[in-house]
Amino acid sequence: MLDDVNFEWLEELIRAAGDIALRHFRQVKTARKADNTVVTVADGEVEAFLRDALLQAYPADSLLGEEFGIRGGQSGRLWAVDPIDGTASYAAGLPVWGVSIGILCHLEPVAGIFFMPLLDELYVCDGCDALFNERPIQANDDSHIDDESFLTVTSAAHRKYRIDFIGKTRALGSTAANICYVARGTAVAALLGRPSLWDIAGVLPILRMAGGDLRYLSGRPFDLAVLGDGRRCLDPVLAGAPWALEYFSQRIEVLQK
Amino acid sequence: MLDDVNFEWLEELIRAAGDIALRHFRQVKTARKADNTVVTVADGEVEAFLRDALLQAYPADSLLGEEFGIRGGQSGRLWAVDPIDGTASYAAGLPVWGVSIGILCHLEPVAGIFFMPLLDELYVCDGCDALFNERPIQANDDSHIDDESFLTVTSAAHRKYRIDFIGKTRALGSTAANICYVARGTAVAALLGRPSLWDIAGVLPILRMAGGDLRYLSGRPFDLAVLGDGRRCLDPVLAGAPWALEYFSQRIEVLQK
Repeated sequence: MLDDVNFEWLEELIRAAGDIALRHFRQVKTARKADNTVVTVADGEVEAFLRDALLQAYPADSLLGEEFGIRGGQSGRLWAVDPIDGTASYAAGLPVWGVSIGILCHLEPVAGIFFMPLLDELYVCDGCDALFNERPIQANDDSHIDDESFLTVTSAAHRKYRIDFIGKTRALGSTAANICYVARGTAVAALLGRPSLWDIAGVLPILRMAGGDLRYLSGRPFDLAVLGDGRRCLDPVLAGAPWALEYFSQRIEVLQK
Repeated sequence: MLDDVNFEWLEELIRAAGDIALRHFRQVKTARKADNTVVTVADGEVEAFLRDALLQAYPADSLLGEEFGIRGGQSGRLWAVDPIDGTASYAAGLPVWGVSIGILCHLEPVAGIFFMPLLDELYVCDGCDALFNERPIQANDDSHIDDESFLTVTSAAHRKYRIDFIGKTRALGSTAANICYVARGTAVAALLGRPSLWDIAGVLPILRMAGGDLRYLSGRPFDLAVLGDGRRCLDPVLAGAPWALEYFSQRIEVLQK
């Protein structure tokens, strides 16, 4: 299902999308969406740019974007686009945000790409390898924890969770970036809140190829299929290597969903 | 006391220091210091570089650095150097860290400069203005708080504080950066833990010139003089505009110092 996907072209495309976002950076005007989250002019411009390019190249495919919703095709392949993952961080002039594109076949994520323009960090899974700036990466499979170990958390963690952890917590502003920090073995795990399909579709293949996975904090197995229409996860989600999913699911208590 | 300080030269110097740190970035080896915090080769190299340059230019002054301690002069002026503020963040390959230089006269901070090399963000107070990349900045003097407002916190916030706040918390990795986010009006406040003189000396003049200040969470007035020998603050510290210092001192409970 990936034979006709040119990953070099996809990398050029996501870098061009990143340039659009960078042009607006630090002079951002925000508005509120129906769900009360923040959106910027750049979100719409980047998504329109990617949507046009992807549907022109792959007219039989479907495309789901955070801003403009779904456009259905017949191929069984879906492109999930988050034009700016970490919009609030972007709007505040903070550095951690990026453009995410996931490829799903019958709602199974098979490849993805995530690019942070300001930091020039490119994460790719082309179906064979998980790469960070062209180098193979791997999630942390050593279960040693000390005070320098870090868990990434959402910006609502202070009111939603009680976290029993001797290490550091970092709230950096982007769900996709948090997952990539796990995939490259920097963060031991990520507490993601309740993401939508576009937040995770681009980076889940990277995480899995690097030896990690997602899991509901409640213990229920993670099921991407229910997110296909744009709904958010019902429960908070953890990202990590298998030992870390087990470790943190026992040490994080949900105070408020 | 600032007549003989050339801020253009100081900007060139801190950019050159940033280049040293950037050369080691993402190939960092860490060690532990006596206080068990992380240190890298770059911390020592950057501090030695700045120490040599500053003491050559101002031989009668004193210099306090995070890594090599104090070197006393007779002028009553002290340079406080943090070669890499946010070492753990730097060592983990995260973006928020920077080089900080503060100028104190009889332990009163009068000017400072903070540079984040990866992000190309330069914050300066030359005694007259507070500038972010050459533009004047101001702390947020509007006391409106909503779910998009953000408070920066330390990476130990999940175990040390109970925070009653409807907005976002962000733990980005650098005390000096957290203070600059307040000074430029992006963050409403910063919860700093227990910083040392070098963590805050470079950016406190920037914060004050932008209309903000520091205060102990306990309500005691902030006193920099006790930090002159390198000791850390005894209590957690807040940074913000006056209304924000009042607001958050009533909403943050210390669980563990």
